[in-house]
Amino acid sequence: MLLCDIGNTTASFLNEQKFYSMSIDQFLQYEPTQKVFYINVNPNLEQRLEQNPLFINLAPYFNFDTIYENLGVDRIAACYTIEDGVVVDAGSAITVDIVSNSIHLGGFILPGIESYKKSFSNISSRLRYELNTQINFDAFPQRTVDALSYGVFKSIYLIIKDSAYDKKLYFTGGDGQFLANFFDYAIYDKFLIFRGMKKAVCENFIL
Amino acid sequence: MLLCDIGNTTASFLNEQKFYSMSIDQFLQYEPTQKVFYINVNPNLEQRLEQNPLFINLAPYFNFDTIYENLGVDRIAACYTIEDGVVVDAGSAITVDIVSNSIHLGGFILPGIESYKKSFSNISSRLRYELNTQINFDAFPQRTVDALSYGVFKSIYLIIKDSAYDKKLYFTGGDGQFLANFFDYAIYDKFLIFRGMKKAVCENFIL
Repeated sequence: MLLCDIGNTTASFLNEQKFYSMSIDQFLQYEPTQKVFYINVNPNLEQRLEQNPLFINLAPYFNFDTIYENLGVDRIAACYTIEDGVVVDAGSAITVDIVSNSIHLGGFILPGIESYKKSFSNISSRLRYELNTQINFDAFPQRTVDALSYGVFKSIYLIIKDSAYDKKLYFTGGDGQFLANFFDYAIYDKFLIFRGMKKAVCENFIL
Repeated sequence: MLLCDIGNTTASFLNEQKFYSMSIDQFLQYEPTQKVFYINVNPNLEQRLEQNPLFINLAPYFNFDTIYENLGVDRIAACYTIEDGVVVDAGSAITVDIVSNSIHLGGFILPGIESYKKSFSNISSRLRYELNTQINFDAFPQRTVDALSYGVFKSIYLIIKDSAYDKKLYFTGGDGQFLANFFDYAIYDKFLIFRGMKKAVCENFIL
């Protein structure tokens, strides 16, 4: 089974146990030779995908209980194997979704970590820094690089903690492992979205 | 006494009780006809200001107790009249500084609200929205515009609340009044920075 998760900046593939990814530009050249079960949140690619019958859109096959308007299919897939918990997908944006008894309670969105960095450098050349990933949350910062890092990481930490109460936390996405480290009990699952996609395939297709 | 606070996007003036501001482009054409006591955080303007003796840089005249490396003079000025409290200057960036017994304990920086909005629209055209300023913090969002607004405003709210404990909150800057509304006991002072500048002038100059 070949699965493909298409985002705003990359397309990621899982072929049985093998994972690989390519940029969207590379993906535009990609010609499938077998069925590709995909989800896609990139509006620019919709038409191209629909034109090739080897691309099979999984979006209609998620049986997911939510009242959220137009919930991104990547967020649905990430939540799809979770019965109770908070799902954080930390990529170009950070999405946070709350699931209770297999019902989606809602969710929110933050900029991705890279995006915070870009914001600062757009505001002023004096705020152009690599963030300090070792930042200490227990003391107020005493220099610019720490002030930026504390602002970004602690504000992300606090709003995730606030939404979780005593629920389990599941992280995925490029910055998921890093953010998971801020929490005592958090699960990082690189393949959370693929797990959801696989579940949708198994529920709906005879392969 | 003519005071001028020069930032990254605007120069603001206070002439006795009269307040006015201009863009940095307009400020480049501005020729003073009297002494201008200024503070400046814009590296591009430093040389120009130093060349004209009517521009008097107030930066050396703040007697402010901090170990923060290269603390922006606008942040020093905003804290300069506060003995105990948390000072939030919400402009193109949001700076938060903690003062206790007239000693600066440190501070941190977040992107400005406009900057969060720009980040989202750069990530995806699907995240291009005006934020909902009426967002409810007590229910998880059920549509994209609310998910973005909740992410931005609640993460800013939580990290400011966390830093304040029981200290008084002082807001200034373009988005200061709006952010102050999220707190039960917060003071909005449009002229906080000018008050600090005036104090520095009065301590050091015979006018």
